Amino acid sequence: MQQRIRRYRGWMGLLALAGLVAGCGGPAAAGTGSAAPGAAAAPPAPLPVEPHGPFARVYDPANLPGARDAAAFPRDWSHAYGNARHNAAFAAPNGAPAWVVQGVSWAFPEARAWPLSEANAFGTRTYGARTALPTQTQFLGNATGVTAVGGVIYAESDDDFAYAINARTGRLIWRYSPVGNHLMGDPVVAHGVVYLSAGSVGFNFAQVQRFAKGEPAIRGGAVSFNGVYALNAQTGRYLWHYGTVGEAMATPAVTGGRLYFATGNGNVHCLDAATGKPLWTTHVGGIDNMSSPAVSGNTVYVALSVPGYLYALNATTGQVEWKVTVPGVVNTGMGDVSPAVSRGVVVMDAIAKTGSTFNTDVFAVSAATGKLLWLHHMGSGPKPPAFKGGVPMIHDGVVYVGSPVNSVYQAYRLRSGRRLWTWQVPDAGPAGAGRGAPTWYRGALYISTGPNVYALNPANGTVLGQEHLGGRFGIVDPVIVGGTAYLGNSWDWVQATPLSRINPHYRP
Amino acid sequence: MQQRIRRYRGWMGLLALAGLVAGCGGPAAAGTGSAAPGAAAAPPAPLPVEPHGPFARVYDPANLPGARDAAAFPRDWSHAYGNARHNAAFAAPNGAPAWVVQGVSWAFPEARAWPLSEANAFGTRTYGARTALPTQTQFLGNATGVTAVGGVIYAESDDDFAYAINARTGRLIWRYSPVGNHLMGDPVVAHGVVYLSAGSVGFNFAQVQRFAKGEPAIRGGAVSFNGVYALNAQTGRYLWHYGTVGEAMATPAVTGGRLYFATGNGNVHCLDAATGKPLWTTHVGGIDNMSSPAVSGNTVYVALSVPGYLYALNATTGQVEWKVTVPGVVNTGMGDVSPAVSRGVVVMDAIAKTGSTFNTDVFAVSAATGKLLWLHHMGSGPKPPAFKGGVPMIHDGVVYVGSPVNSVYQAYRLRSGRRLWTWQVPDAGPAGAGRGAPTWYRGALYISTGPNVYALNPANGTVLGQEHLGGRFGIVDPVIVGGTAYLGNSWDWVQATPLSRINPHYRP
Repeated sequence: MQQRIRRYRGWMGLLALAGLVAGCGGPAAAGTGSAAPGAAAAPPAPLPVEPHGPFARVYDPANLPGARDAAAFPRDWSHAYGNARHNAAFAAPNGAPAWVVQGVSWAFPEARAWPLSEANAFGTRTYGARTALPTQTQFLGNATGVTAVGGVIYAESDDDFAYAINARTGRLIWRYSPVGNHLMGDPVVAHGVVYLSAGSVGFNFAQVQRFAKGEPAIRGGAVSFNGVYALNAQTGRYLWHYGTVGEAMATPAVTGGRLYFATGNGNVHCLDAATGKPLWTTHVGGIDNMSSPAVSGNTVYVALSVPGYLYALNATTGQVEWKVTVPGVVNTGMGDVSPAVSRGVVVMDAIAKTGSTFNTDVFAVSAATGKLLWLHHMGSGPKPPAFKGGVPMIHDGVVYVGSPVNSVYQAYRLRSGRRLWTWQVPDAGPAGAGRGAPTWYRGALYISTGPNVYALNPANGTVLGQEHLGGRFGIVDPVIVGGTAYLGNSWDWVQATPLSRINPHYRP
Repeated sequence: MQQRIRRYRGWMGLLALAGLVAGCGGPAAAGTGSAAPGAAAAPPAPLPVEPHGPFARVYDPANLPGARDAAAFPRDWSHAYGNARHNAAFAAPNGAPAWVVQGVSWAFPEARAWPLSEANAFGTRTYGARTALPTQTQFLGNATGVTAVGGVIYAESDDDFAYAINARTGRLIWRYSPVGNHLMGDPVVAHGVVYLSAGSVGFNFAQVQRFAKGEPAIRGGAVSFNGVYALNAQTGRYLWHYGTVGEAMATPAVTGGRLYFATGNGNVHCLDAATGKPLWTTHVGGIDNMSSPAVSGNTVYVALSVPGYLYALNATTGQVEWKVTVPGVVNTGMGDVSPAVSRGVVVMDAIAKTGSTFNTDVFAVSAATGKLLWLHHMGSGPKPPAFKGGVPMIHDGVVYVGSPVNSVYQAYRLRSGRRLWTWQVPDAGPAGAGRGAPTWYRGALYISTGPNVYALNPANGTVLGQEHLGGRFGIVDPVIVGGTAYLGNSWDWVQATPLSRINPHYRP
């Protein structure tokens, strides 16, 4: 074991010589952090990471993917759940390596890995299963899915680390924990830069008191150092960060050289993706929880709660073009769900209350005007703990969406809103199932929920097959590249499994 | 760099063979965890720690102290701030090694170490200095002071790690992070076992809503896995944990084979210190924040807020013997402060409001009856962020106590309450100073506040000397053994400095 002990005075002197003494945290406090390799950039401001301690960057270039492997994967990852439709499926291109086509199997234990053989979450005896499950998701494991770019699987974990893992071997390329805060998103990647979002779900006591007086409460304020972090995608090297007062739990969107995200103090932010410099900030009010923006055309769609609204903002100016809500929206549902956009239609859902009954209401609005096209109750049930909706996915004019209120997935026609089918999750567990977006790939629908991954017939919702992977899938979509599904779970593991194991009808 | 990749199925099989698949978290879920070396104990239930990952236990026996070094230190550490009087001062015994008498100097960077050359907290530009300082204290650094036992300095940090450091060399003996939660206390130690307390300050949204309806809100509930953890003091090996619904931020007290602590859901707990088995739990209501119990005779004294009361409980039965409050007590003040007990008197303070003015009210009550003996306003000022009081210390019939409302320290006669002097902290900073307990040692009073350690004349409050150590001292008392002061700070460093550097009048 290596030991590094420094005399205080000597250490300060070394720091001064190294030019590390200037600067402090905050918006765009770091160096310019150009993504271009070799560009002359100012050294970034320090982070609260002891360079030789357990949170320091670990990097092993021996585990970088080869060029042929890398080329079989997407080059960028612009949105939570892969794209504005939330369908994270990527066919193997012609000439892809055989392992990409056939699929691979591995399991990578992250820093707070809980044995996959454990059926119950840590703390179940103390908190009960219904509370322990989402607590493990939000504070120890992977809240959302992973990212697949250039032969690398990127994951953010509530263990406070980000990971880059070789998609073929499951070996660690790098890990880093830039700040003592939970990382709940799936990393977005553009032009060789990976962006992480940091935020904690808690409210401090001053904010609790504000809310009781009917004033807006800032989520994450003074209970964590929130914001977004930019790292070199290949090496994990820190480039810059942008601090925010409210939590930045949800995955940003990165497109056209700009980074968009919303925060726990009701702000929607647009940064220059290369430098982290703010381009605009619009205060719309309320709280963004886990709602990630969808960018389509020149419009940013994102939802915030308390009060619950779906917003459309001009991507250039940040001006609100329209906002819309639906009757009976309660709690944090609207601000949890990421809207999906396809063919000029925005699909969203939110928990709503009619009398004493909780429903998930799924609805579609015109992307241009916000005009309501259709709305359906997905069914009623108890108020689910934590994330209170299902991430909708749109493929080929059909919406696929779940609801943790009654643990169903449903399919709807995008235009007409006609319900096509309902599938009841068989092993929903005490905290409810249905939060993650389904993935449509080569004629089958893949859903990760509870401890299982299912393959469904997208035409009628019948089960084609399933695999028990263990742990619990929170707001996790199966990320499919070629013949493999990649997943992150609440037990703090990243897993790869061949589609043929989930779906016996699948042919590579 | 080592890589450990396990096939999922194979790994499960190995676990099953190793007998690790049974059991889950919760109260007394772990093995019996006897502290006796070599005792046959059931293997403890698993923790959410990847055995080869960054949170795993690191242990280097080469850095254990020698027997002579160990013998010059206290053998146990029963209370926060050293004892029920909160005076963490221990003279070098006859025959102590020269380094103990003369004092040593080192600085150990913990996992989130922020450069000591940085005058401002991380995130100052985003949050402002007044918020960034306590945020760094509560989420990255050491909130309270350290522990000195058997030649080892123990520290808990809000970087989620506990550390054991050789008191002479500043080298790491072990570190461990048993759960993804903040560790805010100073570790208590008895019979070779070190006890950590885990808790997060946040409230989840359901609790925010409960508070707004006038119902009790649980601090730390469903935003962290809370409770106490017992580790082998020499090796850091995990013995058992006891999960609690509310946060367990404050340091427990360990005496007579029992562990006492209060939690964020208004409970006071008594466990068997050897096994973690609960002996009694009393629900008194409200929220314990950072108030650590003082045990004197057969009575446990601890304060909770919302509503703010100081309680006396029978240590054997948990029955409330009396409770007392003072006029105008507001906010979290009462539940932040740890009562000090000496000569049949309990000394406490709490933030109180008269009209629009905030005060710290310091008061003394009879330990036997709770009858108010005296009360003084320490002076008025703005509501301080985070910890809203000063930890009182009693030495030889005099109370020494600070107030972050107006950044003063004052001295009072324990019996009469006569104020002896007031000292204004010269470099209090934007978040206020005065939270940490002073330490009386060989005719001088040592106070760590802001970035400095001061030596005062205890008779009149005049400054004898000071040393600038950098960073920020939160609720930190100087822990003095022989000629050295040991400190943990918000910048996530543990420091040792000779008393002669603080106090030019000090003679080893």
